[in-house]
Amino acid sequence: MIYLDNAATTRPLESAVAKAETYLKEEYFNPSARYHGGAEVSRMISRARGYLLERVADRAEFELIFTSCGTEADNQAVFSAAKRGNAVTTAGEHAAVFESFKALKNRGVEPRFAPISADGSVDEDALLSLVDEKTSLVAVVHVNNETGAVNDVFSIAKKVKQKNPRAVFLSDGVQAFGKIPVRLTKDIDFYAVSAHKIGGAKGTGALIRRKGCTALAPYVMGGGQENGMRSGTENTFGIACFYHAAEEKFASLREDAERIARYRERLWALLDRGLFERISPENGTPYILTVSATGLRGEILQRELWDRGVAVGTGSACSSKKPFSRVIEACGYGEEALYGVLRMSFSPATTEEEIEKAAQALNACARARRVE
Amino acid sequence: MIYLDNAATTRPLESAVAKAETYLKEEYFNPSARYHGGAEVSRMISRARGYLLERVADRAEFELIFTSCGTEADNQAVFSAAKRGNAVTTAGEHAAVFESFKALKNRGVEPRFAPISADGSVDEDALLSLVDEKTSLVAVVHVNNETGAVNDVFSIAKKVKQKNPRAVFLSDGVQAFGKIPVRLTKDIDFYAVSAHKIGGAKGTGALIRRKGCTALAPYVMGGGQENGMRSGTENTFGIACFYHAAEEKFASLREDAERIARYRERLWALLDRGLFERISPENGTPYILTVSATGLRGEILQRELWDRGVAVGTGSACSSKKPFSRVIEACGYGEEALYGVLRMSFSPATTEEEIEKAAQALNACARARRVE
Repeated sequence: MIYLDNAATTRPLESAVAKAETYLKEEYFNPSARYHGGAEVSRMISRARGYLLERVADRAEFELIFTSCGTEADNQAVFSAAKRGNAVTTAGEHAAVFESFKALKNRGVEPRFAPISADGSVDEDALLSLVDEKTSLVAVVHVNNETGAVNDVFSIAKKVKQKNPRAVFLSDGVQAFGKIPVRLTKDIDFYAVSAHKIGGAKGTGALIRRKGCTALAPYVMGGGQENGMRSGTENTFGIACFYHAAEEKFASLREDAERIARYRERLWALLDRGLFERISPENGTPYILTVSATGLRGEILQRELWDRGVAVGTGSACSSKKPFSRVIEACGYGEEALYGVLRMSFSPATTEEEIEKAAQALNACARARRVE
Repeated sequence: MIYLDNAATTRPLESAVAKAETYLKEEYFNPSARYHGGAEVSRMISRARGYLLERVADRAEFELIFTSCGTEADNQAVFSAAKRGNAVTTAGEHAAVFESFKALKNRGVEPRFAPISADGSVDEDALLSLVDEKTSLVAVVHVNNETGAVNDVFSIAKKVKQKNPRAVFLSDGVQAFGKIPVRLTKDIDFYAVSAHKIGGAKGTGALIRRKGCTALAPYVMGGGQENGMRSGTENTFGIACFYHAAEEKFASLREDAERIARYRERLWALLDRGLFERISPENGTPYILTVSATGLRGEILQRELWDRGVAVGTGSACSSKKPFSRVIEACGYGEEALYGVLRMSFSPATTEEEIEKAAQALNACARARRVE
């Protein structure tokens, strides 16, 4: 199987699973238990927390709260910070932020959505024009999960703060963390990340928060785990898996990103220009190449590609109940292109040979459908 | 290690982990992906959902939503249903319900707490007297996680509905599911359960809801997983592990419960009456025996027992940041007894030999401390 749907989820790294398995087998204790075994597991959580946080932020200024997924981290940040006035986000957000913003209306907060460009990046001027003195929260996705466009969230956050220093700034970093270099600045208040996009297991995410930002409330309440910010027995296996997967990813993050960027362009170079239209920008994440087989149906091609041993996406797997992608639609594409969207997303394990075989399969499947 | 802290968490069953590992290794696909591999994982989730639900409820009348833990399931039910007037619960609830109720005050809903008896079961008359026409939610834990007392939630729910048919009824079933026979009646609207208390992995729980009860709102919003009721990529490994652990537990649930009830009484019979006072009732869950080494410190005995190879609890691991247990305090015990609380909790794998060795260790540790 040539697996090119790594933006939907990744195969957990064998080395990370092997290291984390002790928390299923020998060290299965509850980290809240005060005997030695529990305390040892609790120390592992602390080490994982420190390691993951320091990869992208200064530990003196930020802290990390483990959650059950990136979506929960986004929800917690949105509903903690957007308590009054209005909240501003983009049309290019992942559903975790987009749907949370839509729900703000029922809570007396006005959600505002800034348009995005053809490549999926936010229209910065439009976004800033929506920010005013009543804005309590601004959320901008770091890497667009459907097109791969990278928003310069550090520059945007700075401009937002210049306009309204009290506005809280959230960025969903799920497609950035462990994939492209990230260093959080003091203008970023919340940053949401996920384990299963970088070789960890499904069921673990984290919310990184600037310590100076007090706009965080517990979202799941109970036993007071995660310093009271996320109750419920910790997913110790998932946390350990996240930790060890990150160790492997961050060790060669820059080299991997450079190599995969070449593969992405190689894939695009091999695709038949008469069949495919490119949606992803060249300056986006190396890990995503989204195209449209305009006039064809992406999900039909997707199934045929599966039969040829190639797994690709058709847009965000998380919102796959819709006929086509809300985000690509917001990029300005018409129905012909929207129905044909295919997303190829890579991991550091992707090989050049896989890229070449995938290109052949893509061309062959689209050509066969086109002829019909 | 003689592990008698199974109410805090259990060692994941080897057979369940082995079966579930395919979702980490081969079938790692996102269940929302529309190609074959994704659809296969999605079907496993459906099978797990059906299996787990049918063990305790009629599938025609109830449905099951996977969550990240029992605590999240409790939170979702509480904050969905308690929208107005008052909400009634007990002083014996797990922190997941208790802390959620405390937070209702800030949301304009009056929380009311019914007292509990010395064994930890709710004072039914007192609870019913708190229910009135303005009550939107009543929550009663099924098995008290600190004393093991079983509340007759089916009878209580019926009486609650007679008094106010519009009141929603929630029961936290985390210490009951997979341990004692349960059959949900139409008076139960929500029932929260957890995987890691019955040999599954930490990070998976579920909320069972009566289909006729419309008082459920999404708690984590995003891609619309779990029929829109719990977004975020599903913890497929955790769900599979829950499923297969439950298969093993439910296969011999009644025989296991009868045998463990005998072991519980054997343990109590072996404990030195001059050192230990019994808190757990005889008609409680077989899986918990809570005692107090009155006048001694439970957490000191706990560490000494660990050094002798016996792991026991000192109360709910989830609320272990407090000096002593809020629930045992609500049972009416004084400080001398409160500081000495020890909870021994069993699993079907607990053996008679372990029980005997644990009793020796408990007596020896308490005796040594008493002499000092």
